[in-house]
Amino acid sequence: MIVAPDPARPGEGLSMAADPALRAPGVALVGAEGTRVLDGLRAGLAAAFGGSEDHFLAPPVIARAVSERAGYPNAFPHLLGTVHGTEDDGPTDLVLTSAACHHVYPLLAGTVLGGERQFGVEAVCFRAEATAETGRLRSFRMYEVVRFGAPEEVQRWRDRALESAVEWVGGLGLTVEVVAANDPFFGRPGRLLAAVQRSEELKWELLAPVDDRQVQAIASANGHKDHFGAAFGLALADGSPAHSACVAFGLDRVVLALRHRHGERTGDWPAHVRQALALGPRPERTGGAASTSRGAQRAGEKGRTSR
Amino acid sequence: MIVAPDPARPGEGLSMAADPALRAPGVALVGAEGTRVLDGLRAGLAAAFGGSEDHFLAPPVIARAVSERAGYPNAFPHLLGTVHGTEDDGPTDLVLTSAACHHVYPLLAGTVLGGERQFGVEAVCFRAEATAETGRLRSFRMYEVVRFGAPEEVQRWRDRALESAVEWVGGLGLTVEVVAANDPFFGRPGRLLAAVQRSEELKWELLAPVDDRQVQAIASANGHKDHFGAAFGLALADGSPAHSACVAFGLDRVVLALRHRHGERTGDWPAHVRQALALGPRPERTGGAASTSRGAQRAGEKGRTSR
Repeated sequence: MIVAPDPARPGEGLSMAADPALRAPGVALVGAEGTRVLDGLRAGLAAAFGGSEDHFLAPPVIARAVSERAGYPNAFPHLLGTVHGTEDDGPTDLVLTSAACHHVYPLLAGTVLGGERQFGVEAVCFRAEATAETGRLRSFRMYEVVRFGAPEEVQRWRDRALESAVEWVGGLGLTVEVVAANDPFFGRPGRLLAAVQRSEELKWELLAPVDDRQVQAIASANGHKDHFGAAFGLALADGSPAHSACVAFGLDRVVLALRHRHGERTGDWPAHVRQALALGPRPERTGGAASTSRGAQRAGEKGRTSR
Repeated sequence: MIVAPDPARPGEGLSMAADPALRAPGVALVGAEGTRVLDGLRAGLAAAFGGSEDHFLAPPVIARAVSERAGYPNAFPHLLGTVHGTEDDGPTDLVLTSAACHHVYPLLAGTVLGGERQFGVEAVCFRAEATAETGRLRSFRMYEVVRFGAPEEVQRWRDRALESAVEWVGGLGLTVEVVAANDPFFGRPGRLLAAVQRSEELKWELLAPVDDRQVQAIASANGHKDHFGAAFGLALADGSPAHSACVAFGLDRVVLALRHRHGERTGDWPAHVRQALALGPRPERTGGAASTSRGAQRAGEKGRTSR
């Protein structure tokens, strides 16, 4: 299950309908407190990865032609969501956004890169996940920093970006395990792609606990080689396809990891974490607003746990 | 057409791919400057309509069962987007979010209201619009304030909310026309619903120019009577279904109206508008960053209009 819904406390955590008939697994609302944390994460990421004017808020749908050009429907047909009309209307020209960075490549398609370029982009993404354990969302916010350039430079940037990502989540009090990983490519040819991705160490994931039993990737650093450069006709000055890499953050999972680490209520989070997220000083605790969070319980505070 | 894309100025306005094959009408990216304006609008709306802890960021997809309970597929089959898998997978349990407020009703379903309740909710919504003139987006941000209570109270709130909405956009320098309107209900029975909606003045729209030829509704104030209360089993203390009303803002259209009114670049916007949107003081203008905006030209400024 995602998160126990509690309509009496709608401002917190991820919320879902109490009536199971009205729920959708892996699809949830974020309350006021979670929204403030998301805002803090965005500001922190912009600072950590060079606040750029080349930043986009991208829509949750995208031209099917872009997704196909990116190779997504072939590689991940089991995860793709497509947009149809009602009943027998058939498919539209749109699919759901699978990765935020897909929105950036078309902006550069058919151009020659003057030098290196870097973009930030955020989108609500969709993946048709078959399970719904904590953090396994079908609809989730992805924040990506995408870098384009020559092969060696992009490789170096990816390695530095991985370090920066570990450092940044560390500053939020999260300890992560960094592992070589692969995307969940489809079928038998997919297993080959996955093996290549692993052996060439193209994908690194940052793993963190999101509940007592569950560890999830909260971020990843990915080398694309010339995949997107070739697919979208993005060339270097010498005519060869540009290389690209990205570092991607699953913002909802970062929020879950923070709640698991520091407690359900942001009021209980350590001062340096609150500061890093621009949440202001820790609020004064009163009897009526007593915390029930793990953090507060760990600290042995005496506040009533009534609610 | 939506907005001329300019990959050289990706930070501004709404952006789309230069290659028409990679575009989707009514689907666009928001750049860094637009994102800051959106943040300012959210903060302003929270202040204008009572910053509430009961505020949600809702996903762009929703359980089909909720959309059906809300009556949307029947009333607006031509606008609904449904989520399918790849090829012959058939429909999933999800549809695209048609209105942000649809996410709130399930949280209260089957409950008895102690008194009045008010929620804020924002979602990226989808409507399968057949045309794509300025502001006619298929994917767009909707910010709603939803109020539940007894019939007369909700009616009074709706009337006050309409006034507050006009006042709030007025504070941003926008002059709007307020007109009785109806939703685009489907088919012949829909024309009857639309006529009732108009004659009972259930829907008021705030109209503003978004380009030189186009006027769009940038907000609306809507009375739902007991439609959602009855559909979701939301009762008043006496057992009768709760009434509801909402005021809804099309954030992307508000941004378009602001750009049309004050100029393309927020740096040229009047100080009081920048202040209302927390955009900081007007930046110093230098030769290189000379503005080409209508606002600056109107003011007869001497900055070079190169680029």
